[in-house]
Amino acid sequence: MPASPIRKLVPYAEAAKQRGVMVYHLNIGQPDIETPPAIMQAVRDVHMRVLEYSHSAGNESYRRKLVEYYKRIGIAVTHEEILITTGGSEAILFAFFACLNPGDEVIIPEPFYANYNGFACTAGIRVIPIPSGIDTGFALPPVEDFERAITARTRAILICNPNNPTGYLYSTAEVEALGNICRKHELFLFSDEAYREFRYEDDSDYLSPLQLPGLEEHVVVMDTISKRYSACGARIGALVTRNKEVYQTALKFGQARLSPPGLAQVLGEAAVDLPENYFDGTREEYRRRRNLLVQRLNAMEGVFCPNPGGAFYAIARLPIDDCDRFCQWLLESFTHNNQTLMLAPATGFYATPGLGVNEVRLAYVLNTDAINAAMDCLEQALKVYPGRR
Amino acid sequence: MPASPIRKLVPYAEAAKQRGVMVYHLNIGQPDIETPPAIMQAVRDVHMRVLEYSHSAGNESYRRKLVEYYKRIGIAVTHEEILITTGGSEAILFAFFACLNPGDEVIIPEPFYANYNGFACTAGIRVIPIPSGIDTGFALPPVEDFERAITARTRAILICNPNNPTGYLYSTAEVEALGNICRKHELFLFSDEAYREFRYEDDSDYLSPLQLPGLEEHVVVMDTISKRYSACGARIGALVTRNKEVYQTALKFGQARLSPPGLAQVLGEAAVDLPENYFDGTREEYRRRRNLLVQRLNAMEGVFCPNPGGAFYAIARLPIDDCDRFCQWLLESFTHNNQTLMLAPATGFYATPGLGVNEVRLAYVLNTDAINAAMDCLEQALKVYPGRR
Repeated sequence: MPASPIRKLVPYAEAAKQRGVMVYHLNIGQPDIETPPAIMQAVRDVHMRVLEYSHSAGNESYRRKLVEYYKRIGIAVTHEEILITTGGSEAILFAFFACLNPGDEVIIPEPFYANYNGFACTAGIRVIPIPSGIDTGFALPPVEDFERAITARTRAILICNPNNPTGYLYSTAEVEALGNICRKHELFLFSDEAYREFRYEDDSDYLSPLQLPGLEEHVVVMDTISKRYSACGARIGALVTRNKEVYQTALKFGQARLSPPGLAQVLGEAAVDLPENYFDGTREEYRRRRNLLVQRLNAMEGVFCPNPGGAFYAIARLPIDDCDRFCQWLLESFTHNNQTLMLAPATGFYATPGLGVNEVRLAYVLNTDAINAAMDCLEQALKVYPGRR
Repeated sequence: MPASPIRKLVPYAEAAKQRGVMVYHLNIGQPDIETPPAIMQAVRDVHMRVLEYSHSAGNESYRRKLVEYYKRIGIAVTHEEILITTGGSEAILFAFFACLNPGDEVIIPEPFYANYNGFACTAGIRVIPIPSGIDTGFALPPVEDFERAITARTRAILICNPNNPTGYLYSTAEVEALGNICRKHELFLFSDEAYREFRYEDDSDYLSPLQLPGLEEHVVVMDTISKRYSACGARIGALVTRNKEVYQTALKFGQARLSPPGLAQVLGEAAVDLPENYFDGTREEYRRRRNLLVQRLNAMEGVFCPNPGGAFYAIARLPIDDCDRFCQWLLESFTHNNQTLMLAPATGFYATPGLGVNEVRLAYVLNTDAINAAMDCLEQALKVYPGRR
């Protein structure tokens, strides 16, 4: 089992803080946005005599509520096609367990969310990476690259859209191209849509594979309320599929673990009733942060950061020798006005050794003042870093 | 992945209810005891701006609080030896994943908690059952039976104490015997202690393997608040081990799934502060129910039910041809005063085919009036069941 690549720098950050250094955390996807008070209140208003197991697929009332949510965004599913999971994490695990046997392969464009490796290891399956590159802004690799990677053991393609860690938003045409590959080769299409609402440009060009015709048996969506409502600690997600066999198999894993968290399902259910304009403010805030971050990065000499269309991450290419060394150096040996910043080395998001060695991932989960201060640090750091290239 | 054996009768129970029949549920371990209002209130009193991810090992404040709890019951552990999990279920999974490779074997006295099969399947490991029998009240099988079952792939022995589904409470001598086997053969000793507080006779003869000297590297305890505080829906458990390598490996699985549920950890932490006598009332209530259930069962002709020392389950031998057929018949074809009862066929708890075919498991999670009414039904049913032997 691989350790989380984002966490290996934590001891250096802790040591820096103990030395009295202020550390800006751009390394993790923990939003600072307030959890909507109304959904926290919904939990307070619960008065149940016994906190019982819920249905293994989640409370029916919550699943029916989610049907409304999906309908509102143009996805027609029934409550029997939604399985409530313990965070998006469990939805990914259940999809892997339900659709792949040990030794089977899942193709994932890299860089990708590092925990996919951990879940693949847990399920005994192989991740086959297909490189996407910073010069195209991490667009979907060409169809031929996917077809070349398909073997007799390939069972699925997995995308995260909008993407963690690149922030790339796949176009309708790209999602359709993936759908065509999966239809042609009889593969599952896994779509991790944790960041669905976080899109900053023209909204029209976004498609969930659940909206593609003829893929009813192929598509499995992994979803979560963690980022959408800034409720990461609730641990509530969902697996959504119209494939009955996949659903029933995933449900068996759900039955073994009995039920998803009870109190947090109440919170998730209340979230569907938030006002329609709830995301407007959040989206506007993230858009401001993204614009600032990307502008500041590209203004630094030798730095390139494509403009991400969604999520709250960006990957930047820096004029450095080695991102792991650089990120550790930032915490160990650098300060600017007694401040420094913590970044995620991009190597942790690539499966192919050597890729991403001069790239870092930045999560813009801090307010614009903090982002400005962190960028001041980075600009200064790049001037004095001994491994500058 | 096997389906849960307890759940396969659910459609028959639903059909009975739709026909207007009252069904007494003695089939599942969902207690009817009130969740302590103080711990539900603790969740209401939480005022956090952002419901963030907790530490992957669980909130440090909760782990430190659990150190107090374990100390109080004679178990000395530190907060770095406790990993908070999403229910006891995840503790079992993490123990399997951290200690066994695919193809490895775990020895479990049967009958055993059916979901161990699901978790073993998930982890790709083999369950090797050792039969225990109703005539000894499901006491620990002889040491020789364990030694005969040990192969080059054996990595662990797993017990549940007090036991689900038998209610058997292992004696200090039995736990020591298991410890000796594990020490001698270098095996892990997994101890599922979900029902630790539910013991109805002399308290003195109870031992957790964590209290055995010389087994620091061997013992992994799986724990949960589900039954202890009637908080099954919270989904909060713990893995407890002094083996640092096991802990660190389990933590990697914990990091992949990010964190256990946040709100429910608050509830778990508050539970440690419940008054010392909290369990007295619960224990007294379950003792009353057990005494009634066992007395009623043994008063029926041809029925034998050993007196269980703990948990809230009993296994009874009935004068029937086939427990699966009988339990289905109870729901499909029998009523007494327009009532019937739902039992768990014991075959689902045995891995060896043919065992338990005339046994059922009864969970005494209903009040004494309901137990009496359910036993009236059973008594009548056994008189008219066509497959009576």
